[in-house]
Amino acid sequence: MNAAHDAPPRTSLPFDAATAGADSAALAPFPNSRKVYIEGSRPDIRVPMREIWQSPTPGSFGGEANPPLFVYDTSGPYTDPMAAIDLRRGLPTPRLPWIVERGDTEALPGPSSAYGRARLDDPALAALRFALQRPPRRARPGRNVTQMHYARQGIVTPEMEFVALRENLRRKEYLASLAESGPVGARMAALLGRQHPGQSFGASIPPEVTPEFVRQEVARGRAIIPANINHPEVEPMIIGRNFLVKVNANIGNSAVSSSIGEEVDKMTWAIRWGADNVMDLSTGKHIHETREWIIRNSPVPIGTVPIYQALEKVGGKAEELSWEIYRDTLIEQAEQGVDYFTIHAGVRLAFVPMTARRLTGIVSRGGAIMAKWCLAHHRESFLYTHFEEICDIMKAYDVSFSLGDGLRPGAIYDANDEAQLAELKTLGELTQRAWKHDVQTMIEGPGHVPLHLIRENMDLQLEQCSEAPFYTLGPLTTDIAPGYDHITSGIGAATIGWYGTAMLCYVTPKEHLGLPDRDDVRDGIITYKIAAHAADLAKGHPGAQMRDNALSKARFEFRWADQFNLGLDPDKARLFHDATLPKESAKVAHFCSMCGPQFCSMKITQEVRAYAEQGMQEKALEFVRGGATLYREL
Amino acid sequence: MNAAHDAPPRTSLPFDAATAGADSAALAPFPNSRKVYIEGSRPDIRVPMREIWQSPTPGSFGGEANPPLFVYDTSGPYTDPMAAIDLRRGLPTPRLPWIVERGDTEALPGPSSAYGRARLDDPALAALRFALQRPPRRARPGRNVTQMHYARQGIVTPEMEFVALRENLRRKEYLASLAESGPVGARMAALLGRQHPGQSFGASIPPEVTPEFVRQEVARGRAIIPANINHPEVEPMIIGRNFLVKVNANIGNSAVSSSIGEEVDKMTWAIRWGADNVMDLSTGKHIHETREWIIRNSPVPIGTVPIYQALEKVGGKAEELSWEIYRDTLIEQAEQGVDYFTIHAGVRLAFVPMTARRLTGIVSRGGAIMAKWCLAHHRESFLYTHFEEICDIMKAYDVSFSLGDGLRPGAIYDANDEAQLAELKTLGELTQRAWKHDVQTMIEGPGHVPLHLIRENMDLQLEQCSEAPFYTLGPLTTDIAPGYDHITSGIGAATIGWYGTAMLCYVTPKEHLGLPDRDDVRDGIITYKIAAHAADLAKGHPGAQMRDNALSKARFEFRWADQFNLGLDPDKARLFHDATLPKESAKVAHFCSMCGPQFCSMKITQEVRAYAEQGMQEKALEFVRGGATLYREL
Repeated sequence: MNAAHDAPPRTSLPFDAATAGADSAALAPFPNSRKVYIEGSRPDIRVPMREIWQSPTPGSFGGEANPPLFVYDTSGPYTDPMAAIDLRRGLPTPRLPWIVERGDTEALPGPSSAYGRARLDDPALAALRFALQRPPRRARPGRNVTQMHYARQGIVTPEMEFVALRENLRRKEYLASLAESGPVGARMAALLGRQHPGQSFGASIPPEVTPEFVRQEVARGRAIIPANINHPEVEPMIIGRNFLVKVNANIGNSAVSSSIGEEVDKMTWAIRWGADNVMDLSTGKHIHETREWIIRNSPVPIGTVPIYQALEKVGGKAEELSWEIYRDTLIEQAEQGVDYFTIHAGVRLAFVPMTARRLTGIVSRGGAIMAKWCLAHHRESFLYTHFEEICDIMKAYDVSFSLGDGLRPGAIYDANDEAQLAELKTLGELTQRAWKHDVQTMIEGPGHVPLHLIRENMDLQLEQCSEAPFYTLGPLTTDIAPGYDHITSGIGAATIGWYGTAMLCYVTPKEHLGLPDRDDVRDGIITYKIAAHAADLAKGHPGAQMRDNALSKARFEFRWADQFNLGLDPDKARLFHDATLPKESAKVAHFCSMCGPQFCSMKITQEVRAYAEQGMQEKALEFVRGGATLYREL
Repeated sequence: MNAAHDAPPRTSLPFDAATAGADSAALAPFPNSRKVYIEGSRPDIRVPMREIWQSPTPGSFGGEANPPLFVYDTSGPYTDPMAAIDLRRGLPTPRLPWIVERGDTEALPGPSSAYGRARLDDPALAALRFALQRPPRRARPGRNVTQMHYARQGIVTPEMEFVALRENLRRKEYLASLAESGPVGARMAALLGRQHPGQSFGASIPPEVTPEFVRQEVARGRAIIPANINHPEVEPMIIGRNFLVKVNANIGNSAVSSSIGEEVDKMTWAIRWGADNVMDLSTGKHIHETREWIIRNSPVPIGTVPIYQALEKVGGKAEELSWEIYRDTLIEQAEQGVDYFTIHAGVRLAFVPMTARRLTGIVSRGGAIMAKWCLAHHRESFLYTHFEEICDIMKAYDVSFSLGDGLRPGAIYDANDEAQLAELKTLGELTQRAWKHDVQTMIEGPGHVPLHLIRENMDLQLEQCSEAPFYTLGPLTTDIAPGYDHITSGIGAATIGWYGTAMLCYVTPKEHLGLPDRDDVRDGIITYKIAAHAADLAKGHPGAQMRDNALSKARFEFRWADQFNLGLDPDKARLFHDATLPKESAKVAHFCSMCGPQFCSMKITQEVRAYAEQGMQEKALEFVRGGATLYREL
C-alpha cells in the first residue's frame, strides 16, 4: 500500500524556518512507477516523465508482455527517491544557466521594491523567512526577456525545447521501438496507438510537437510558457489550445485559517496529483514569506493576484489603493519569481453599473476591489490607465499576464451578460497592447454558465482575444449543489476544454463553503485531470487515448494492479477494490465484487472471442460436448 | 443537524421478515422542509412535492420575505413524518383503485409462474418472505393494460394527470400568487422565474405540462410511464425527452456481498437523494424474495434484468437457457410488479463476431450471456425470435421495455463501433414491433464514449428509434480514472442529457472496482442529479432555473442555512461549512472561511450596487468623506 493515502494530516504547529520539512505523503513514489528524465539537445535539458510498469498478460489471454507506459509528470523531484529534498534549501535550479547565458539579465544587489526590502530588514520575520542566497534578477536596461520576445526573434529557447519534449511523452519513439520488437510488439503498438479522430473546433494540433512549433505558437501568442527569470526552479510547461489541456490548483491562506507550512504542503500535494500550475491566493498574514517558501520549492509555475496583497498594505481600504502601491507589489512579487499575475485591468469604470441588476453582482474579489476603487474615486481603473507601465514590468522579468475576469458571472442567472461580455472585449484590446510589448498573455474566463451558453464564451474569447490562451474557472453548470461544485464545474470544464480552453482552474468540493483541505485538493485536481483528459480525447490530441487503451486492456485482462496503477489515483482505486475483496489473491482473480465469479461479462467475452476467432459453428459443437461452465472458483 | 448524515451503517445481521425495520437515516425529513401533496382532479390523485422554507433577507439587503420553494420529491412517504412506515406491511397503494376501476384486469388466485409458486410453497423461505396479502393481477383475456394503449385510445389516466402535476411543480400558480402579493412579491416572481432560453436539439418542451400533453407523448412513444399494474405502491413518473431528465440508481446483491435488508435500505437511501427509478440487479441468493421486499416498499418504478435470474435457474450455464425458463421468469417478475425489464433482444447472432476485435469485447452481462447462448447453439437469440410473445406478456401487466444495449462499448477504444451501431438499429426495429402492441419502450445506451462522439449516439438513437426515450449509462468520457467514474461519466451524462437523453443511469465511484456502499450510492445519485439538472437548464426546461436563482440569491445575501437547504445535499453543505466555521453565529456572518471577513467580494458588491443605484458621483463623494471601511467584525 502506498504511503500517500495513509499519511496523517500535518499538524498546525507554528511555522519555523529552521525545521521546515517536506510532507512525507508528497514524497512517496507512485506504485510500480519511476521518474525518468528525457535528455534534450543539451545535457541540462532533462524532461521528467513517469514510467509505469505493467505485469504480463495472463497466459489464458495470450501471455504477452505489456510495455511500460509514460505519463506526464507534474510532481517535480518530490516523487523521485534519488532526489534529496530539503524545503529549507529549495529545489535545484535547472533553468538558471539558460537564463544567465542569454546575457540579457543582471543580478540585482537586493530586492528593488520598497516592501521587499522592508520585509528583508525586519528581524521579527527571521524565524519565518526562507534563507534565499540568490539575488533577484532583472532584464538589463532596454532588454526584453520574455519567451514571446525570443520566439519573435526566431530563437528556440531551452524552455521551448523542454516543453516540446514534455508534450510528446516520447510517443513516437515508444511506438516505433515497440513495433520493431516483433509481431507481438507491433500488435501492441497498433492497439495502444489507435485513437478516434477528434473534433477540435478549429485548433491546429500537430501530429508531433517540435521545438519550432512551440516557438511559432508562443510568437503568435497562441500559447504561453509561464517562466519568470526569478523562478529558475521551474520545469517549463506550456499553455495553449494546441497543447495538452492543463490544470491549475488554487491554494492560499486566509485571515481565518492556515499557516506557511500548510501552504507549502498543499502545493506539493497538488502537484503530486497533477496540478500543472498553482496559484497562491493568500490573503492572510505573512503573504510575502509564504510566497517565497512556495516558489523556492515549486517545480510548477506559480501565479498570484497582486491586488490582494496591495489591499493588505492599505489596511483593506480599497479606496486607498494607488498605482504606486500596486506597482511596488508587482515588482516585489516579480523579483520573488511569480510566473503569472492575475490583473483585473478589464474592470473599467463604465462597466461597473452594468452589474447593479445582477443576481450576485461582482463575485471576483479582485474585480470587486477595483470596482469599489473606481466608484470611490469616480475614475478609470489605475490598472487600465497604467497598463503600459505594467507591461514594462512584466517584460523585465517575464511575468505572464493572466487578464482577470473581474466581472465573471457568479450565478447561472448572470451568465453571458452585458458586463461580462464588455469586459471580455476589453481583455481582447489589452491582449493586443500586451503583445506589442511581447508580453505573454492568457485570458481568464467564467464562472457560472449553463452548458448551452459555454460555447458562446469560447467563441467570443477566441475571436476577441485572437486565440490568446483561455483559462477558465469551471464553469459551474448549475448553482444547486454546494458541496459538489467540483462536479458541477468539472462538467463545464470538460466541455469548454473540448471547445478550446487551454487551462482549467480547479474547483474543490468546498467551493462556496470553506477552505479546501487535503482531501478536497485531491478531489478537485483529479476531477479536473479527468475534465482535461476528456477534452484532450475529444479534440483528438495525438496519443491522448494511449493511457485509456492501456488501462482498458489491463481491465479486460483482470490485471487489477495494473488497472489501479495506470489510473489517475492508484491509491483510491486500490482502496475501493479492497473494501470488498481485500485479499491479495483477489488482485489476480478473474472477477470482481460487482458481479461475483459467475456473471463476469469480461470472462464470458473472452470465451466469445475464442469462438468467433476459431469458427463459430465448430466451436459451438465442441463447447456443448464439453459442457464447459463459467469460471466459478473464488 | 439532520440525522441522516450521522446515521451509522446498518449491520449485516441475518435478515428476518418478522423484525424488518426501516433505515432511520432514510426517514429523517430534510431540514426546513415538509412534504406537501397537490390534489388533482380527484381526491385520490395526491402528488408529492417538497416545500423548502427560507428565512427573510437580512435587513441590510432589503429585508423582504423569501417564499418557500417547491422541489421534485422522489423519496415517497419515507420523509413524511406523518406517514407510518412499516416495511413488513409495505407502502400504501394509491394506484390500486385506478387499476381496479378500469375493469380490464383480474386478480389471479396466485402466482401463475411455476417458479413463483415454488418459492411461495417453500417453507424454508418463511423467515425471509414478504407477507403479501394481495393476489397478483393480470389483464383480462384479450385486453391490453398499458399506459400507451390507453393513451392511444384517447384516455387520460390518473397516472398521466399525476405526472403532469408532478412535472410542473406548481410553477405557474406559485409565480402567479407571488406576483399578486404586492410589489416585493412581483419582483421576486420576476427574479425567480427568469431563465436563459435553452437549446434543445429539436425537443418539443411545452411551457406547461398538461395531462393531455402527457397522453400525446405516451401515445406516440416519445415518453413512458413505467407502472406495472402489480406495483400499485408507485408514485407515477414519466421518462421522455420533453420532460425533466430522470436518474436511475442500480442496487442489487451479488454472490459476494449484501443481504435483503441492505438492499431495501439502499433503495430507500437512493430515493432520498433523488433516484427517480431503481433497478434491482441482484445476482446472488434469494433474488425473488429480495425483489418482493423492494417493490412492496418502493414508491419509484423498479426495473430488472430478468436474464440474470433465468441464468441462476440453470446453474449459471448460459447454453442451458431456454425460452421457457425465460418466459416463466418474465411472468414471475411481472406478477411481483417489476415496472420495466431490460431485455437484450438486439444481441443477434450475426453481431457477435463483430465484437471479436474489440479491446474489451462485450461488457454488458446480459449481452455476454446472450452472445454465449447464440454461439453455443449457433442460433438466433430466443429473445429476438420470441419477441412477439414477450410483447404479449408486457402488455398483460404493463411492463415497459428497456431494450438493452448488450453490445455497448466498455472502453473508449470500442466506442461507436460496428457492433454497437448494428445493435442500435435493431433496437429501432424492435421499438416499432413493441409499439404495434402498444407496449411502452425505452432504449438503453452506452457506455464508454469520448465527448465528441456522444452526439452521434444521440442523433442515431433519435432517428433509428423514432424518439423512443433514450436511457444511458453515463457515458464515461475516459477510462483512466477508476475510483472517480461517477465523474468521468457525469460529464458524459450531462452532455447526452442536454442532447436529448430522457433518463441517466448513475455510475458510482466504485464502478469497475466493487459494490457501492451507502456513501457511493449518495455520491453517484447527487452527481447524476447535477448532470440531469445541468441538462434541464441547457435544454431550457421551463422553471428549471428557479432553484438556481433561489439558491444564488440566498448565497449572495449570506443566508447560509438557506443556501445549504436549497441544495441537493443540505447535510454535506452544512458539514463542509462547519468544518472551518462551526459556530452558529457564522451561519449569519457576512463572509465565509474562503476569504475571511475583509475580502468578501459579495459584501463589496452590495456596496457597489448601492452606489450604482443612487448615482455614482454623489455616492463616491459621500463615501470618501465617511471613510467607510469594509465589514471586518468576526
